[in-house]
Amino acid sequence: MFAPDFDKQGGLVPAIAQDADTGEVLMLAYMNEEAWKRTLETGEAHYWSRSRQCLWHKGGTSGHVQKVRSIRIDCDDDTLVLMIEQVGGAACHTGRRSCFFRELVNGEVSECSPMVFDPKEVYR
Amino acid sequence: MFAPDFDKQGGLVPAIAQDADTGEVLMLAYMNEEAWKRTLETGEAHYWSRSRQCLWHKGGTSGHVQKVRSIRIDCDDDTLVLMIEQVGGAACHTGRRSCFFRELVNGEVSECSPMVFDPKEVYR
Repeated sequence: MFAPDFDKQGGLVPAIAQDADTGEVLMLAYMNEEAWKRTLETGEAHYWSRSRQCLWHKGGTSGHVQKVRSIRIDCDDDTLVLMIEQVGGAACHTGRRSCFFRELVNGEVSECSPMVFDPKEVYR
Repeated sequence: MFAPDFDKQGGLVPAIAQDADTGEVLMLAYMNEEAWKRTLETGEAHYWSRSRQCLWHKGGTSGHVQKVRSIRIDCDDDTLVLMIEQVGGAACHTGRRSCFFRELVNGEVSECSPMVFDPKEVYR
């Protein structure tokens, strides 16, 4: 059975969204069972928004949906990797391709993911 | 300030370990503040083991440590990506390179990460 064990962590599992072409890790969000089922049914990533406490169809407002090519599950069934195509090119609400756009290397912090859109233009 | 906000999620943040050369996501574990500090001090990944409730120097027993080349943090400071070199070639206790070794594609499940070592030989 290929399904996360939602009982282990209070009904939620972390889901890593990874760009299926480049391998860049774009974001991490959480799924409940409903989000998992909707993702399988639609082929587009759905999460549970912990801040808004509601089902979250990623890109449902902006059009920047995540088309799911494959899903990986870990050895203890409590974490997912979604291999996705990010429509619009950016996963982060700041307009950057990845939410992980700051990087620490040898004590120096730099930016490591490009700005793709102006959030003021997308979220009105 | 480049540091996770440990207060947001009960003292722990998820940390994704990604192979710095291949981009493969190898595992996800959790860090508390002590694990974060020890990782920065030593250059080797330390986590908080939720099952054993103790600081966990990954590979401390097997020798299969994770050498950290860089660390990325997300837009809301509550998730990390460690870009690592996995000594011994496998992150998973099953002997596979990645803990995410099962993949669902078009309704079919297959294995997607090779067996690197025999766990019976490494964990005695």
